[in-house]
Amino acid sequence: MTARFLALYDAPADPEAFDRHYHEIHIPLIRQLPGLRRYSVGRDVAALHGSPCYLITQLEWENMEELRAAFSSPEGHATATDAAHLQELAPVRRMIFTADEEMV
Amino acid sequence: MTARFLALYDAPADPEAFDRHYHEIHIPLIRQLPGLRRYSVGRDVAALHGSPCYLITQLEWENMEELRAAFSSPEGHATATDAAHLQELAPVRRMIFTADEEMV
Repeated sequence: MTARFLALYDAPADPEAFDRHYHEIHIPLIRQLPGLRRYSVGRDVAALHGSPCYLITQLEWENMEELRAAFSSPEGHATATDAAHLQELAPVRRMIFTADEEMV
Repeated sequence: MTARFLALYDAPADPEAFDRHYHEIHIPLIRQLPGLRRYSVGRDVAALHGSPCYLITQLEWENMEELRAAFSSPEGHATATDAAHLQELAPVRRMIFTADEEMV
């Protein structure tokens, strides 16, 4: 099992300001989240069925309890506060929490 | 780097028929794709910003060349043909290809 948090960002009005904030402030905050096992930042290479996202980020924990503990931690609250600032730069199209079964 | 293919499925009209087709036919096809490094099937636990998806699947390759080679292979064509059948059971809300940078 894997617990995952996905965020799909729409195109920012000012990509340079968004990228700077994301890389200089948001990434360091996310890296401090307790129990974080994997963190990927993806560019949308080709979207089928819908307009492309600007950024797709994925955070993984061992299970849903670890994910919840991270979101409830002081580091989680700091990240959430910064995420609210980020969303002033680029709207979030979707945020998704999944409980995954690993098939391969 | 990771190359990833995400599919977000909407709720099927007949969940039982969709699940049966997905597990009995689609999963075995996907598992035969060349170079596939990871394959996760996730249930949407809690959606923020939008209605929940029924299923979120992720396939990962080492890089975009490996992903493209898999999609162009005979196994890739067989999977795509079956994916078209699957979409008669549950509409795909989004299909996304990403080139990911691994941050953790």
